[in-house]
Amino acid sequence: MTRQLHLNAFLMTTGHHEASWRLPESDPYAHVRLEHYVRLARAAERGTFDSLFLADGPQLWNSVAQRPAGALEPLTLLTALATATEHIGLIATASTSYNSPYNLARKFASLDIISGGRAGWNIVTTAGAEAARNFGLDAEPAHAERYARAAEFLDVALKLWDSWEDDTILADKAAGVWGDDAKIHPPGHRGTYFSVEGALNVPRTPQGYPLLVQAGSSEDGKAFAARYAEAVFTAQQTLADAQAFYADLKSRTAQAGRDPEHIKVLPGIVPVLGSTEAEARANEQVLEDHIVHEHGVAHLERLLQLPTGTLELDAQVPADLPSEDAVEGAKSRYTLVVGLARRERLTVRQLIGRLGGGRGHLTFAGTPEQVADAIETWFTQGAADGFNIMPPVLPSGLDAFVDHVVPLLRARGLLRTEYGPRQTLRERYGLPRPANQYVRTPAPAPALV
Amino acid sequence: MTRQLHLNAFLMTTGHHEASWRLPESDPYAHVRLEHYVRLARAAERGTFDSLFLADGPQLWNSVAQRPAGALEPLTLLTALATATEHIGLIATASTSYNSPYNLARKFASLDIISGGRAGWNIVTTAGAEAARNFGLDAEPAHAERYARAAEFLDVALKLWDSWEDDTILADKAAGVWGDDAKIHPPGHRGTYFSVEGALNVPRTPQGYPLLVQAGSSEDGKAFAARYAEAVFTAQQTLADAQAFYADLKSRTAQAGRDPEHIKVLPGIVPVLGSTEAEARANEQVLEDHIVHEHGVAHLERLLQLPTGTLELDAQVPADLPSEDAVEGAKSRYTLVVGLARRERLTVRQLIGRLGGGRGHLTFAGTPEQVADAIETWFTQGAADGFNIMPPVLPSGLDAFVDHVVPLLRARGLLRTEYGPRQTLRERYGLPRPANQYVRTPAPAPALV
Repeated sequence: MTRQLHLNAFLMTTGHHEASWRLPESDPYAHVRLEHYVRLARAAERGTFDSLFLADGPQLWNSVAQRPAGALEPLTLLTALATATEHIGLIATASTSYNSPYNLARKFASLDIISGGRAGWNIVTTAGAEAARNFGLDAEPAHAERYARAAEFLDVALKLWDSWEDDTILADKAAGVWGDDAKIHPPGHRGTYFSVEGALNVPRTPQGYPLLVQAGSSEDGKAFAARYAEAVFTAQQTLADAQAFYADLKSRTAQAGRDPEHIKVLPGIVPVLGSTEAEARANEQVLEDHIVHEHGVAHLERLLQLPTGTLELDAQVPADLPSEDAVEGAKSRYTLVVGLARRERLTVRQLIGRLGGGRGHLTFAGTPEQVADAIETWFTQGAADGFNIMPPVLPSGLDAFVDHVVPLLRARGLLRTEYGPRQTLRERYGLPRPANQYVRTPAPAPALV
Repeated sequence: MTRQLHLNAFLMTTGHHEASWRLPESDPYAHVRLEHYVRLARAAERGTFDSLFLADGPQLWNSVAQRPAGALEPLTLLTALATATEHIGLIATASTSYNSPYNLARKFASLDIISGGRAGWNIVTTAGAEAARNFGLDAEPAHAERYARAAEFLDVALKLWDSWEDDTILADKAAGVWGDDAKIHPPGHRGTYFSVEGALNVPRTPQGYPLLVQAGSSEDGKAFAARYAEAVFTAQQTLADAQAFYADLKSRTAQAGRDPEHIKVLPGIVPVLGSTEAEARANEQVLEDHIVHEHGVAHLERLLQLPTGTLELDAQVPADLPSEDAVEGAKSRYTLVVGLARRERLTVRQLIGRLGGGRGHLTFAGTPEQVADAIETWFTQGAADGFNIMPPVLPSGLDAFVDHVVPLLRARGLLRTEYGPRQTLRERYGLPRPANQYVRTPAPAPALV
């Protein structure tokens, strides 16, 4: 069989384009309507996607004027979606900076059990002072410190998920012995950021632990991904950049002693579809025309860490911006945005238009054939193992992708035509079930870490 | 209409009796099977219960040998149950000692939205060093400190739930204005235990915030309940004790400036049913015969804070136990158990038998008529506003209660015969929707706090 493409549906209220909520078709209350997300999840399942995904941050963005703000907590929403779907993987973002390992490991274990092995965790360290100030801190922790904490968080979480051997439960009613205490392994962890003594209070789950996903592309982020991640979401603007990122990450993963096949790279793409290229461009223009530029300027100033009022709409982005090293926030996104503005000599207005669709992810306007061609090129030219599909408008953009692009990908043999038997999320991504680190006897499947 | 009884189904794996899992009918894997809980939730809905409830603690109890251990995280499980039910309230236990207000407030807000206003929070401070050691502490925080933190936690959570006014969302597509920033109220909280700057990233929910439930009966617990709780679960062994507790809590609530009708008192009852009293007693004996006494001794020694090996199975409980004041754990449960042992001059074996069913809650073995009589007596004699129904074996014990006791309560006019129109959990309990503390204009409903 041809190497298979992995597709993830990145769901976001009324769509990834910041102005999508203003379209006549959009429901401005979609962000709190379960039925909206159920409809999206079922559309993605109709398209035999591997998984769906919810981004998140534990703070309210600065203004609710601009676009739908606030969102159902991802693990809660995905639990509800688990009961409304059968096959698709369910990936939730959660922060290592603003959670405790015991609680978070337990929630993901619970979702993995309830969904029959379909849970995934997009591991984020959460940039920004707004989030920090909601959790007792005065300022954002330094970038390197956030990643050091994330690594220790993962080590603890992996110990907790392994703290029950798979065959702990004996269920011996006659003898009155329910479980085997010898197969419980309390972490007894004492580290820099965490002390966690006891075993998890959930048995080992169908997948062992959730699929581990990561999306930071800074140096720290790539080092972390090479060590832990099984799937990586990334924003890449050109084929060459995507190829370089792909090769770099696979190489780092091999250097970390892991099989490079066991990390799947999924760039984001915002497909703006039309029956002709001209129609697609017109659809893109409609969205751009709905952008409120004053919001865009304020957002860009925050991203570039500039004082309010610095940017002028019809001037170019200032030339004297600091390098990524001096930035404590979302480092790789910063570099991408500055690079895009300089490479294409964009005015602030043009840059806002380019970012409005996907916040730095590749926006691709075209016919279904052109989108399928772009996907196939990146997939076959060493730039991607699959894609993070980010429809500009929801639900219509996901329906359009499923109805018009998915059949082409299937016809080319790149994507499954049906799910077949039930599989775990990790099985869908072609990854083995991780062995338990506490089991000393030869394990049936190789360990991932 | 006659004053109406409130019923809550307290769900626990294979049942509240510690030996229930050993019965032939019991599924020893019930604790991780969603379908088991869906079945229970639907049975409770068939019985037109007000709510169902899951207890919890963030630790694995000492031994998995004794009985099913570990459990799906309650908020996760209740989210899945929200999609499988239509009317019943969903009450999850969560700890103020081992959560952060921002994350927990958001999760409950999400559940309240997804369930259409059916979320409840059983607020616990979590006794025990095992839990503390899973969250970076070496020992359990002192009882009074746990309650001081809980009070500040509630104040912050209430600010977060009120941080969006009900009419924040404008959805003005033409003007490009989604929400009104003037109706967002960041808590800006700086306290002893928490600093939380920003507004919640979830809009105000159908109920405003989840029904607030509390179950501690210590002095600190009762003071906390009088200030915040809208429903109270309590363990009472005699009518006289229950009447005294009821009167005390209503009086404290009035002294705190609240309407005593706005706090509902629900003692726990473990109904062991039989078609005759003799059959009910025989059913109780079957359960008691399945207790493994060595586990019971170890459990009792921990509860009474005695060294291992102190208790002898056929001797009485030692007379020289310390008073509740000297105990840092579950204070009121300690007093109840010591009082029960002394009042009835029980041996350790007998005490274990009495506690095996409900861990201190009232076990009542009898015919459906006798159980209905007991419930009616407590309800009409100033001891209860309703009951926390704790079936000894699940699902059969809940089915039996719904099929045989509920019809009697309905025939006596004490319990609704159908749900009628959809209501929030707070409406089911006859409580008003809380006003938003940040709204200065006259509110349609009186504030609770």
